[in-house]
Amino acid sequence: MTTENKILTGMANAIRALSMDAVQAANSGHPGMPMGMADVATVLFSEYVKFDPSAPKWDDRDRFVLSAGHGSMLIYSLLNLTGYAHPTMDEIRNFRQLGSPCAGHPENFLLDGIECTTGPLGQGLAMAVGMAIAERHLNAKHGDDLVDHRTWVVAGDGCLMEGVNHEAIGLAGNLQLGRMIVLWDDNDITIDGSVELSSNEDIEARYAAAKWHTVRCDGHDPADIRRAIDEALADPRPSLIACKTIIGKGAPNKQGTSATHGSPLGDAEIAAAREVLGWTEEPFVIPDDIAAAWKATGERGKQAHADWQARLDSDADRRASYQAASMKGDSAASAALEGYIADLAANPKTVATRKASEMALEVLTAAIPTMIGGSADLTGSNNTKTKSTGPLTAADYSGRYLYYGIREFGMSAAMNGMALHGGVIPYGGTFLIFSDYARNAIRMSALQEAEVVYVLTHDSIGLGEDGPTHQPVEQVMSLRLIPNLNVYRPADVIETAECWALALSTPGTPSVLALTRQNLPQLRGEGDADWSESNNRSAKGAYRLKSADAARKVILIATGSEVELAVNVAKALEADGIGADVISMPCAELFDAQDAAYRNDILPEADAAGTLRVSIEAGVTFGWQKYTHGGGSAGLNIGLDRFGASAPAEKLFERFGFTVDAIVPQIMTKLNG
Amino acid sequence: MTTENKILTGMANAIRALSMDAVQAANSGHPGMPMGMADVATVLFSEYVKFDPSAPKWDDRDRFVLSAGHGSMLIYSLLNLTGYAHPTMDEIRNFRQLGSPCAGHPENFLLDGIECTTGPLGQGLAMAVGMAIAERHLNAKHGDDLVDHRTWVVAGDGCLMEGVNHEAIGLAGNLQLGRMIVLWDDNDITIDGSVELSSNEDIEARYAAAKWHTVRCDGHDPADIRRAIDEALADPRPSLIACKTIIGKGAPNKQGTSATHGSPLGDAEIAAAREVLGWTEEPFVIPDDIAAAWKATGERGKQAHADWQARLDSDADRRASYQAASMKGDSAASAALEGYIADLAANPKTVATRKASEMALEVLTAAIPTMIGGSADLTGSNNTKTKSTGPLTAADYSGRYLYYGIREFGMSAAMNGMALHGGVIPYGGTFLIFSDYARNAIRMSALQEAEVVYVLTHDSIGLGEDGPTHQPVEQVMSLRLIPNLNVYRPADVIETAECWALALSTPGTPSVLALTRQNLPQLRGEGDADWSESNNRSAKGAYRLKSADAARKVILIATGSEVELAVNVAKALEADGIGADVISMPCAELFDAQDAAYRNDILPEADAAGTLRVSIEAGVTFGWQKYTHGGGSAGLNIGLDRFGASAPAEKLFERFGFTVDAIVPQIMTKLNG
Repeated sequence: MTTENKILTGMANAIRALSMDAVQAANSGHPGMPMGMADVATVLFSEYVKFDPSAPKWDDRDRFVLSAGHGSMLIYSLLNLTGYAHPTMDEIRNFRQLGSPCAGHPENFLLDGIECTTGPLGQGLAMAVGMAIAERHLNAKHGDDLVDHRTWVVAGDGCLMEGVNHEAIGLAGNLQLGRMIVLWDDNDITIDGSVELSSNEDIEARYAAAKWHTVRCDGHDPADIRRAIDEALADPRPSLIACKTIIGKGAPNKQGTSATHGSPLGDAEIAAAREVLGWTEEPFVIPDDIAAAWKATGERGKQAHADWQARLDSDADRRASYQAASMKGDSAASAALEGYIADLAANPKTVATRKASEMALEVLTAAIPTMIGGSADLTGSNNTKTKSTGPLTAADYSGRYLYYGIREFGMSAAMNGMALHGGVIPYGGTFLIFSDYARNAIRMSALQEAEVVYVLTHDSIGLGEDGPTHQPVEQVMSLRLIPNLNVYRPADVIETAECWALALSTPGTPSVLALTRQNLPQLRGEGDADWSESNNRSAKGAYRLKSADAARKVILIATGSEVELAVNVAKALEADGIGADVISMPCAELFDAQDAAYRNDILPEADAAGTLRVSIEAGVTFGWQKYTHGGGSAGLNIGLDRFGASAPAEKLFERFGFTVDAIVPQIMTKLNG
Repeated sequence: MTTENKILTGMANAIRALSMDAVQAANSGHPGMPMGMADVATVLFSEYVKFDPSAPKWDDRDRFVLSAGHGSMLIYSLLNLTGYAHPTMDEIRNFRQLGSPCAGHPENFLLDGIECTTGPLGQGLAMAVGMAIAERHLNAKHGDDLVDHRTWVVAGDGCLMEGVNHEAIGLAGNLQLGRMIVLWDDNDITIDGSVELSSNEDIEARYAAAKWHTVRCDGHDPADIRRAIDEALADPRPSLIACKTIIGKGAPNKQGTSATHGSPLGDAEIAAAREVLGWTEEPFVIPDDIAAAWKATGERGKQAHADWQARLDSDADRRASYQAASMKGDSAASAALEGYIADLAANPKTVATRKASEMALEVLTAAIPTMIGGSADLTGSNNTKTKSTGPLTAADYSGRYLYYGIREFGMSAAMNGMALHGGVIPYGGTFLIFSDYARNAIRMSALQEAEVVYVLTHDSIGLGEDGPTHQPVEQVMSLRLIPNLNVYRPADVIETAECWALALSTPGTPSVLALTRQNLPQLRGEGDADWSESNNRSAKGAYRLKSADAARKVILIATGSEVELAVNVAKALEADGIGADVISMPCAELFDAQDAAYRNDILPEADAAGTLRVSIEAGVTFGWQKYTHGGGSAGLNIGLDRFGASAPAEKLFERFGFTVDAIVPQIMTKLNG
């Protein structure tokens, strides 16, 4: 073995030792992947990845994504050994314990150097596609000397077998994201045993079919790893490097088997592995020479960072333009919309809220150059494309609109990657029903605190003839259950603009806009002539659109297309001398965040009059009891607790009881009951 | 043109005319696909597909799946023209209208001959994989003379671009389902425009990488279509036939563009198309010669059906064994479990409910030979494999256990196809969190009334160290929102068996079992020594596990692992003289289905004592107000309205307040408040 290789092997064994020992200490975790990929990771970090451990958020760093997130000890080892401030060795000792940033799977909100949270298989690689898109786009905007970094991914068989992988590599292939390199841990093992149990796919051929470059290497031979990476770097296509490895390499009796995948090796096997690896240190101790070799790996990046900073500082104009371009939406969205909303107040518009969204987006995308739109092949239906957003293609990365194809999950994961990369604010559309396809990526937006806006149109039986497969019934409510996600369902053209302003002013919280296919009358306008951020009525989540005229006996709470219906129900009740408030609730999450005084004013907890609270939403009623029940009120929930049907929208609303004539008698029965 | 081809062209034009006219009459729908694929469908149905229009449910029919379900007029035309009782021409005239079985997308519950509901892209093809699996399995069981049919699929670019396609074809390739043939409508068009906008994939190469046979044909040349199908039939692998077609073929000005995809052609274009096609009939009228040619296509199948019936009837023993094998679970499940549960009553077991599920499955799979298990690469974690279920592989289709690979969505769609095929009852496992990946397929189980059982383990923060990406918080509640889906969360080993018995006795309703990773004590046993179906306490969805000793002031409602906690909270309250019921609610849907008297007994609507109702579940509280609020009770909801964290399970339950010490003071405050 050459001296150089001896050092590299020692460095790799440091990863192996830390991984074995941390998993053993936790009595939980996955030693197999970090031990198998230790040699690849060592070559990669010591010779290729551009990073500055002292400035982990440096814009022009390479992005490294451990898509096979269960092998989290690999990245914790790397961050510690290369000199990041965290995790400390004590934090690694507390792997998988409460309070340690070394969680079971890498969490972007716990440690710098973790570009995204991984663990849900396939999504790390798909998010990396989004990072690579953002890089090329910003490169087109700012030039090679300011934006010039790569996206590296370590992925396992699980990441490659998941459906989202097909969507992600198709997108990357079509956009020819040549600066993205995937290192596949090709170890022939999944949890159930040999890969052959479930797959006989030729993975390289599949990637080639998606217009990727592919190359193989021996994942335990530094020279061969280097050769493969160099070949990948030289190719203009995105690259897959199949690294043939032995899972759990170094554990003499268990390596190469699924026994090393997700369980501690046990003391005896660890002792045997130390013997094989020639590793004589106590657990969590790294010999000085190896520690020094690892620390040295950060130097390339430190120098590159300094050079980059010098280039940025050398030209005050460019520096100003570079910094201005990273302007976030929040500062600009409400200001941009002021004139637009004032105009609506004067000249009401009856439009579908998907169209209202397009109208707001015309204003917003013109004012906020960091917004990048797209749709999963429903551009004309989602109304997501604006005049300011030309196509972003392999031929022109400066565009701001992505034709994501029929890839809802891939689109959503890519948007997470774009948002986490920074410098862009992604929004993307599909039908609300297909949020089901992307659901875990939406959850990952929320968990990762990524500013992504989901434009989900055709939000109820109001989509009509396409029928129950396309009619969301439970989706709005079910998205409300995801923590840290704001679900907006605006009632008219002005509320839609207000919700867009809010969606762009919550950087740590992603947003869903649930929008109608069908036209809705404009309900707002009064008092909106001098609209500004401070009187965005949707900002409190729910507000009194109409106060009872007669003595209040009913409070109608509705969202989206059913607010108009609630207004008409209220009119009918008032005609009978029954006072009724109408509460528009475009965002339940924001309402829940208000103080008790405001909430109690809108929905009185203990109302001496025993006011009946009624919810109206064209979806499942389960959940609405939170707002209609309690405090003496038994409540009434108008909704749709079954699948829809195929017919024109107006027929369906009638068939399923969303009419004044169907609702008023139910209220009367409840009031008199 | 030969006479034969002239007839075929006329038959295809009948499809084109019906499709144009029905979409125009509805002013809504997708004419492009049926017009483009009319020639392929004509050759296929007149020469290849085995079907008997007079016996649409004949077991040994070929399965035809229109995966590109938006082109529903293709199958409505075929069913009408080949002589199925429905749809009638009047029903076709009412395409997409309320009450017509000709819904926007084909619905299996509205028309015989629709093998599965399609529309959500990619899933039709994936369900077809399940049908092809069921066919090979039953063939292995009953022989070529009783089970010998093919599965045909028409798919579009959308079906192929979706991630689930990768999972589905990988599964089919590994199982070498050679009797499955996909006809791909290769028309270069998606909704947004040219396919090139979003994809540059070489689809044939990708299918070849998944070990499929591929062949191309001119989709408008009957002889070439025939050549390609014959080649596919001769190949032992599953086949993809790329049918090069012109979308909207026949519409002279719009064909070949996305304008024909999802909108009516308009009267002028339809008139021009009639001219081009030489179609002179009024809308919805088929010339006699063409009608006769179409009617004749069903004759092959009628004869084949008669021959099959003769073979079945020729041997009384085989006939008996064939019929016995289609035994459904319902008749057998409870009977099989009687002794097992009686034994548990005598010898309590502390096990995780995932283990309890395995124990029940050992009994059930031994008794019910139609059950086919599997897991998305988590066999040892989901505890889904039993002694009775050997691997189902390409080498041995008689097995009863599928290694689905890391393909949650593909697995779930395949299970739908298996259930809809009939003759098998599929169950399959993954972590509960990854129900997100399969969510729309679970919804499709419910919509299609398919008897599928989802075994979803690691059902809360109780999974511990893997952290928030793997800890379901909102999943149980969000699955409860799907109509016609029973979500079970059993509390101990006996409830788990009860829930399995119920899951196998609701043929029109799929089931989810949410199961723990961690051990739970046995809470049940008293009164269960002579357990039988009629005293399955879980059957009412919720029941009183423990009655208040002191005067009742509190009703604790809990599910799964939190029932033990509720029992301990009740003990603490009783120690302070506060009477508390404990309600175990393994299935909210079944509870909702009980009569008012039972529901009011368990959860009194108007309780003079103002009994406080408290829910305890280690997930989001949104939704629980339905059971805790109203009738004078303000209610208290103990849950987790945030993402979890990485740590050992017991630390997490403590950290997030799932302890007697944390809960009792909240109850006391509420009682005294």
